[in-house]
Parts: sequence; structure tokens; C-alpha cells
Amino acid sequence: MKAKTVKIGMVGYGTVGTGVARILHENADEITQRTGLRLELACVVDKDVTSPRQFQVPQDIVTDDLNVLLEDKSIDIALELVGGTTFAKDLQLKLLRSGKHVVTANKALLAEHGSELFREAIDAGRCIAFEASCCGGIPIVSSLRTGLAANQITGLYGIFNGTCNYILSCMTDNGSAFSEVLKEAQGKGLAEADPTLDINGMDTAHKLAILGSLAFNCRIGMGDIHVEGIEDIDITDIRNAREMGYILKLLAIAEKDKDHRISLRVHPAFISENTPLAQVDGPFNAVSVFGNAVGNTMFYGRGAGMMATASAVVADIIEIALSNGAELFESMSMTNDVKRLIELKPIEEIDCRFYVRIMAKDEAGVFAKYGNVLGEHGISISGAMQHESTGPDNTVPVLITTHMTQQKNMTAALEAFQNLDCITEKPVCIRIIDIPEDKDE
Amino acid sequence: MKAKTVKIGMVGYGTVGTGVARILHENADEITQRTGLRLELACVVDKDVTSPRQFQVPQDIVTDDLNVLLEDKSIDIALELVGGTTFAKDLQLKLLRSGKHVVTANKALLAEHGSELFREAIDAGRCIAFEASCCGGIPIVSSLRTGLAANQITGLYGIFNGTCNYILSCMTDNGSAFSEVLKEAQGKGLAEADPTLDINGMDTAHKLAILGSLAFNCRIGMGDIHVEGIEDIDITDIRNAREMGYILKLLAIAEKDKDHRISLRVHPAFISENTPLAQVDGPFNAVSVFGNAVGNTMFYGRGAGMMATASAVVADIIEIALSNGAELFESMSMTNDVKRLIELKPIEEIDCRFYVRIMAKDEAGVFAKYGNVLGEHGISISGAMQHESTGPDNTVPVLITTHMTQQKNMTAALEAFQNLDCITEKPVCIRIIDIPEDKDE
Repeated sequence: MKAKTVKIGMVGYGTVGTGVARILHENADEITQRTGLRLELACVVDKDVTSPRQFQVPQDIVTDDLNVLLEDKSIDIALELVGGTTFAKDLQLKLLRSGKHVVTANKALLAEHGSELFREAIDAGRCIAFEASCCGGIPIVSSLRTGLAANQITGLYGIFNGTCNYILSCMTDNGSAFSEVLKEAQGKGLAEADPTLDINGMDTAHKLAILGSLAFNCRIGMGDIHVEGIEDIDITDIRNAREMGYILKLLAIAEKDKDHRISLRVHPAFISENTPLAQVDGPFNAVSVFGNAVGNTMFYGRGAGMMATASAVVADIIEIALSNGAELFESMSMTNDVKRLIELKPIEEIDCRFYVRIMAKDEAGVFAKYGNVLGEHGISISGAMQHESTGPDNTVPVLITTHMTQQKNMTAALEAFQNLDCITEKPVCIRIIDIPEDKDE
Repeated sequence: MKAKTVKIGMVGYGTVGTGVARILHENADEITQRTGLRLELACVVDKDVTSPRQFQVPQDIVTDDLNVLLEDKSIDIALELVGGTTFAKDLQLKLLRSGKHVVTANKALLAEHGSELFREAIDAGRCIAFEASCCGGIPIVSSLRTGLAANQITGLYGIFNGTCNYILSCMTDNGSAFSEVLKEAQGKGLAEADPTLDINGMDTAHKLAILGSLAFNCRIGMGDIHVEGIEDIDITDIRNAREMGYILKLLAIAEKDKDHRISLRVHPAFISENTPLAQVDGPFNAVSVFGNAVGNTMFYGRGAGMMATASAVVADIIEIALSNGAELFESMSMTNDVKRLIELKPIEEIDCRFYVRIMAKDEAGVFAKYGNVLGEHGISISGAMQHESTGPDNTVPVLITTHMTQQKNMTAALEAFQNLDCITEKPVCIRIIDIPEDKDE
């Protein structure tokens, strides 16, 4: 079979762009052999056309003029690898309007402006492919779109942010404080100079918006997701929970309950050390997907980085070139004008277990007081631990884990604690998530 | 968007067929919403048209006459779910010649006669889709074909047989003997009445032939794979190695060495208890794939069973209906007439570590004797353990683990042991496989 040449334009010759150029060069023969396609990088647009890169493309295909790409009708597929949500949005619209399919790794843009962009793509008969936007090299987008397409998805639990996961892994393994580990990660290039979007959970939420949309066949926006970050995590609680058999992760969760209401959220969560997601360390990502036919599946791999992300970008190029990308794409319900058949479940109505750390005065009758508060709010204690070590001002830390209860009960109990004078500071409260088990009877 | 109706014919109304019918019924709305397709089961062929099934299709679409399906030109996609390699082969050829795409879960047929069948499909401009043939509901076929297509695959390590994995998990956890656990598994329906193909490793090899073909872009036949089963595994060795931190698995391995030679093999292997594959228990399957861009990825899920396998069958139906199946398919190198660009590495030339259990006479100078034999064959001991408990006839079990060495050195050493009169029975020798780690520097 003669190889079919596919010309590619790339905007953004940074880290991921450099990785894409390297794969297209180094793996060219394997790709041709596997797919029958010869992928030719024909045009690279970047405002910086001179700085040396880790992998250098021929200088004659590099330009700082986007119009060169827009006007080249021989190029069908364009890569948007610039990031950000302002220039990149305008760029994707221009690329689509010039008749090109778009491949992107830009999760923030798709999560925030996806509806408008996908609508434009459908109208232009083109597609926006975005495997690289979620979980780096893990083929989770294509798995949700095709491999698991026969299923009703009942739950999706993921570790989507390598920076947070690296920080939490280090805190767990070395007992170091958050700020210390963050600084170390920045030194190693594993965290951005401004890590805000990573540690406040927004980056994870961007990915959950995209994967949730695929899982539940509707457009999920950022406003649909409850988001909490890891900024306030105290090493004390990681250490305490470790003793009880729990590991702390920043978890993305999409769950459908028996009334078909969907809970979408990102927050720190203690998970059992025996659950496979608990073993996912450092910069790795993983996602566990439950389908009503397939049961539990899990996907694991590098969530970011030059080559893993570039691997996903090139996978999308191949898929568009081999199939009718636009048709595949039109069937996805990624725009706001597709009627939502789901109902969202407010965070206060979710059920889960909780870890609570109370700093209480070390005096008689105290245990009964906060035990009463929990009881009055219908919260049942599953475990309690009081170390003999004392805190400041003759206080002792008391650790409590609860049975399943609604979030609103816990929210109310936490408020009621504020009226107890035996409790000296705001209690720490972290959710315990029991990831479902898929077991034979 | 108006849903497009796709009519499907199914041959074989057994376990998997029943699961497919159930998914097409129960998940119909979700599938339509996700894909824009209405999948209609239009014809079911089975020699038994009367026995009740767990899920019942309308009686008027059931027939025992294959010609009804072959002659129905409105049906483009046919499912071969009968199993076996004789009737099924003839059936697939007939379906292809009548102009239908074929979807199958039949790993034995594809591994043994795939080249002929794929050639027929290409000539007919039709495809044979086979996601369900490997690892049940895990979308590993599509991940190798598209999601990881930009990579040179350097290694693939898998647990592909749920029966073996269940047996080994039970032996490890409960300390029961092989024959006992097998009987129990048969009682629970987790092992076939005739489990030969499962426990002798051939079922795993069938899947490795298919996935290896995809990973390395060439037809891999059964003759290319070295196969050993778990029939002779003694609980003693599982227990001993457990103490050293190893878990026994029946492993499928496809590795490319630095000279681009490929080793394809199925055999029992001790793997470190800390490696993710070691955590894969019971009926679950997992596969770890290493790509030169993506690094390590892992896929996990149910490897068999009615609904998980049916999930993969329906995924293939959707993919064929949404894309140009035949074109996608033609690019795969699954026939013998595609020139192989790989060279196979004979089993005697692989490098690995070994666990050896020697039953030796409990007398002076013995340790030196077998130490000498190993040394003479260039094998370096990495660990040794001699329990004080004695075996029959005043013998003691001595356990040795080795550093990396070539298989042929170990084969020669095992032969030389036979000439030592201090060794009273044939030594047990099991490979220790160090699954590569994907770590940042």
C-alpha cells in the first residue's frame, strides 16, 4: 500500500510542539508502517523563530506569520499548541474558518469556551481533537468516545494533576510540609513558577469538565463543578490518616447516583491505601471508569511532559487523517445547545465519609460534647483516636472518622462546633472517598 | 441530529451474544446520544432457537438458517460469536464474501488463521474488528491501533488469562495447592470444565499474538511465541518467593531489545510485589505498554465475562459504523504477506533473573558444589536462603535468586546439576521478570 502524505501545520513551537516535531521525525517509519500515512510537518508558526529548541525543524518551514498557515490550502490539520484562553481561542476560530481540523492540548480553553469552539467546528464541518488535553499520553478521550461507548458510565475517579500528585506523594513519603515540597518541585521543574491553577484544583476541574462531558454525553461547564484545592493541607492530617490506612489524593470525581443525578467535584480525598488509585505516585495520572457493562476499568500513565503529551497530539492527527474526523466529532454532545438529560447533584447532597481533626481542651466531658454535636446531626462515628501528645494551650488533637452521611449534615456539625468552647480552633475536615469495588459475588 | 440506523446480524446466541443483545437494548439511548447511531439487532442465527436465555430477543429475528443473514443486504455488520476455529473460520469467510464487516471475540481463530482471514477481508473491502478478542472490556486493541500509534513500542507485559490469574491469586492468598484451587474455580464457573488452553498458556499466547502484531506492525503467529503454562507450579515456590517480595503471575511478554530483536513469550514469572501488575488479582486482566514517547501506560479491567466482552463487541460495532472501517483496517499489517521488519529473539538468548529451588542433601560441601556449577556458567547469585526445615531423605530446600543472565546459561547449569549426586531431584526454576520502571531522573 502506498503511503498517503498528510501535511500538518503547527502553531506554538514550545515544549509540546518540540515533542511533536521530534515524534514526527523519529517515529516516522513506524507511523507509516502502522497507519499507511506519511505525516509531514509543513509549517511551524511561532513568534520566536530563532531560539534553539531541543529538537530543531528545518528553518524554511518556520514562520512568525500565521497567514502563511491559514492560506496554505494543502494543509488540512493544524495544531494549536500555544496555551492560554485568549489568543488561543481566536487562533482556533481562525484555523477552523480557514478549513482546517484543529488538534489541541488546551484543556483550559476547551473547559471554558468549548461550547462556542465546538459549535464553530461543527458548522465548519471540521473537528477539534483533544486527546492531549486530558491525562497526557493516556488514551482516555478515545477510550471514553469509542472503547467504552457501549456503556452507561456510572462513575469516574481520577488523579489528573501531576504537580499536586507529586506534592502529595512527597508529603506522604517524606513527611515534609506543603510549602517545602512545593519549593522543591519548582526547583526540579515539576511545578510552574505560578502553580496556582494546579494546586487550587482548577486544572483538574478543566480536565473533569472535558471527560465528564464525554462520560455523560452533555456539555459540562466549569460552573457545574465543585472545586477545592490542596493549598491548606496540613502534613499532620496526611500522617494521621496514613496510620489509619488512608492516602491523600486530589481527586476528580464524576458520579451518577441511583436517581441519575450527577455529582461533579474536585477535592482532596482520603482513599484506602489498598485501592489501585492510591498507588499512583508522583507525576503519573490515572483514571478509573465504571461502566454498567464493562465494570471497573483503569487507565494509567504520564499525565504531562513533552513526549507523553506529544504522543497524544500525534494520535489525534492519525485519527483525523484515517477517519472522517468531522463525522465522528459531530456526534459528540459538547455544545451548550444540546439538551442536557442529566441533573446535577449539589455538593451539600453528596454522601460520603469524613475525617475530622478537632483540637480540644484536655478536660473532662469534652469527648461527650462533640460526640453529642455529631449525634445531633445524625452523624455516626466509625473510628476515633486521641494521641496522648498535647497541642498548644493544653489542647489535644482528636481524630474522628465517620460513617456515610450527607455533606450538609457535616457542614452543620462543623458550624455547631464553633459554639463549643472546648474546641480551640476550626476543625479540619477532609472527605474519605470509598472508590467502588468491582467484585464477583 | 437524526440518528442513523445500523442493522446488525449476530451468529451465536450464547453467553457473549446474550450480553450484546442486552447492551443493545438497555444502553440503546445512551449509545444513540453518544454516537448518533441507532444500533438494531436485526437477525440472530443459532442452531438452538428455542432454549431460554438470560436476555431474550424477539423470537421473529431468531433463525437457525445462516442464509437468512447472508442474503440480507440491509445488514452491513455481522458478529461471529460462535468460537472455535473450524466452523467459525468458514463462517467468517462466508460473512466477508457476502459483503459484511465482521466483529469477533475469537482470539484462537485470529491467532491461528488470522492471516488468511485478514487477506480475505482486505480483498473484500471489509474489516474484521476484534477488540473483544483480547482482555475483555479493556480497550487495548484500539489503544494500540490509535491512542498509542505515534509510539515505537518497546515492551508489553500483560496478564491476559483470568482463570490462571484467579488460580494463582488463590494459591498466593490461601496457600492452597494448584489442583485444589482449580477444582474450586470450576465449581464457581471461573474455569472451564476443560481448562487446558487456559492453564497451559495457549489462550494467553493467542492474545499475545494479536496484540504483538499490533504493537510491532507485523503478523505474529503462534509459532513465534515461546509458551509455558502454570500446570507444574508448586505452592511451595509461591510461598517461598512471597517471603522474598515476589508474586507469581502468568505473564505475556513482548520486548524489543536495543538491537531491535523481539522476544515473544508466555510463562510463569515472579514479579516484584511493588509493581502495579502484581496488584492485579482474580479475574482481572491488565497490560502495561511502554512506548518511546509515552513512557509507561497501564490498562486494567475485566478480562472476560458476558458483559465486559459484549462491551468490547459493541464498541467495535460503533467504530465500524462511525468510521471507514475498511480503510482503517487495511493499514494494519496483520497478514503474512506484509514483510516483517523485525527479527525474533530465541528464548535461549533472553536475559532475565531466575529463582531456583534445589533439594540438596544436608551434608558438608554441598553449597560449594552447586555454587560452583552456577559460577562455571557465568551465573551470579543475588540471594540465597536455606530454611532449617528438612525435606524427605535428609534433604534441605535451598533457594537461590540470580542476577541477570542469559537463558542458555541457566539451561546449561540446570543440566549440569543433574550430574551432582548431592542434588536429589530436578531443581525448580522460575524466571524473575523486572518490569521496567518509568522514572524521572
